[in-house]
Amino acid sequence: MSINKNYKPSPKEQLSVEQIFNDLIKGNVRALSEAITLIESKRSEDHANAIDLINKCLPHSGNSIRIGITGVPGVGKSTFIEALGEYIIQSTGKKVAVLAIDPSSKVSKGSILGDKTRMQKLSANEKAFIRPSASAGSLGGVANATRESILLCEAAGYEVILIETVGVGQSETEVAEMVDFFLLLMLAGAGDELQGIKRGIMEMTDALFINKADGDNLKNSEKAAVQYRSAIHLFPPKENLWTPVVDICSAIESKNIDKVWSVIDEFYRSTTNSGMFSQVRAKQNEYWFVKNTELLIQQKIFTNVELLKLHEELKQKVKLGEISPLVASVEFVNKVF
Amino acid sequence: MSINKNYKPSPKEQLSVEQIFNDLIKGNVRALSEAITLIESKRSEDHANAIDLINKCLPHSGNSIRIGITGVPGVGKSTFIEALGEYIIQSTGKKVAVLAIDPSSKVSKGSILGDKTRMQKLSANEKAFIRPSASAGSLGGVANATRESILLCEAAGYEVILIETVGVGQSETEVAEMVDFFLLLMLAGAGDELQGIKRGIMEMTDALFINKADGDNLKNSEKAAVQYRSAIHLFPPKENLWTPVVDICSAIESKNIDKVWSVIDEFYRSTTNSGMFSQVRAKQNEYWFVKNTELLIQQKIFTNVELLKLHEELKQKVKLGEISPLVASVEFVNKVF
Repeated sequence: MSINKNYKPSPKEQLSVEQIFNDLIKGNVRALSEAITLIESKRSEDHANAIDLINKCLPHSGNSIRIGITGVPGVGKSTFIEALGEYIIQSTGKKVAVLAIDPSSKVSKGSILGDKTRMQKLSANEKAFIRPSASAGSLGGVANATRESILLCEAAGYEVILIETVGVGQSETEVAEMVDFFLLLMLAGAGDELQGIKRGIMEMTDALFINKADGDNLKNSEKAAVQYRSAIHLFPPKENLWTPVVDICSAIESKNIDKVWSVIDEFYRSTTNSGMFSQVRAKQNEYWFVKNTELLIQQKIFTNVELLKLHEELKQKVKLGEISPLVASVEFVNKVF
Repeated sequence: MSINKNYKPSPKEQLSVEQIFNDLIKGNVRALSEAITLIESKRSEDHANAIDLINKCLPHSGNSIRIGITGVPGVGKSTFIEALGEYIIQSTGKKVAVLAIDPSSKVSKGSILGDKTRMQKLSANEKAFIRPSASAGSLGGVANATRESILLCEAAGYEVILIETVGVGQSETEVAEMVDFFLLLMLAGAGDELQGIKRGIMEMTDALFINKADGDNLKNSEKAAVQYRSAIHLFPPKENLWTPVVDICSAIESKNIDKVWSVIDEFYRSTTNSGMFSQVRAKQNEYWFVKNTELLIQQKIFTNVELLKLHEELKQKVKLGEISPLVASVEFVNKVF
């Protein structure tokens, strides 16, 4: 990625960014879609406009709660998100945006996450906005595209942002760094479904809901909830000092979905009162600044094919134990400068 | 830090590195101490010699099990490490090295960790080597100094490396990336002692031992062990596929210390059989290569005072939400190149 700072969008294009922005802050859905597409664009010519748009939207952003929702495939995420989204809109009148982050989806628009066809009822709701995951290659990568899209949705007046992710990938650390609240959806079971979840997710969880707690599954779900509740209490509190909530629900019966929202609401009140809410957001901003900087510097360095080659060679030698990691890094950096 | 690759140690110094190396691989303790001191040196003139020494030692390293031991102050780490070290030497004849990592100890030699005075019996044992934490400013930072020291100890014939750390700091992620096995020491209690432990430590734990399980404390310790055992089983397995072991012990009565070692031994057999042992070490090497590279590049960039100032300014604006992290990083990187 290269940003040409001297690049001035032509008057026609400039009007476009202006126009997109003006429509977006009035809540125009088409403008929001176009804005996100611009952010996700792989074309370097679009990057200057994307930056421009983000700068315009930033002062209008922030007024939301950002909720990460994760769980292995099969746990019922789409049904859950749909039920939760519907409930929030109906009971609070707030607009709800559903984004997804799935860095593994290299083929765009093929991602299952955030797929409107799986949340048909919600996507028909005029207060809902649903967007599939960005694919690799966008400005700063998939995580960044999602992050900046959050800002755009907030500028467009969406006060609840749901970010869907699959618990088995690499994305959960990044999702934790872009949300206020992290919800893990699970099933009662022999523990098999846990095999897919990375252990680190337990560390981030603010709420654990055992889904499909209906019919024959109800008793097992209640038992599982009791077990997890005691387990979670044995572990140290999160940095945000919130004690994670464990409960059951049935998305398909819309059972206890109101409980999900009241937990989130309580979290919001409690952490805004303590100041923890903005403190965490400030730390997240700092995290992304440092991470982006490293990423961009690395990208610049690796446009040099020789350096890229050397890096790969050294990495291989390091993995095989032929050269110490420290010595290899010194050698590499000496070549860079 | 700057490495002058054209710097050739004077013949007198060069003999020193040669001599240190030759004595070190014969197991000479003084040579090992001098070698580690060289690695930890803040003087840039020493860095070339340090690199030279690491390169010589590398082919002789690796033949050990590296064990991280953590727990909040007061849990009895020194007594535990002493008891474990004594037991291992006595029952297996292996040499044991005790290192420490405490990045917060900016004043060298004042660190409590790895303090010989607290492990007097063990430090008198000729098969034990105890070294306090490096302080900030050494080649690549404290974590790197510890990491490279591990290689030196291994080259000197130490087959068990115990790395002590405090669970409340920032160092546990780094410790997890330099050990094969991670042991958490705790006390039975109301849960208060957990307040100090970062949640992420639970994720890395291969064994959890409840210490001071003696006298009036015995029943509570047994109860706590049962609770933690069920809790840990509810969570996903670690990447190394090992199921964490929970048990009680009393370091001061040397009770169940044999169990500690047999768990570690079983872990070693099981993960070497599955190939996971070397797989994890290879990934760790890769991690350090990438991390060191980023660190060194950053150090180089920040020798430029203007860039350092700009970075701090942008970081502040980002934290206050005045500028988007992505936009700030683009602005900074443009200035760098």
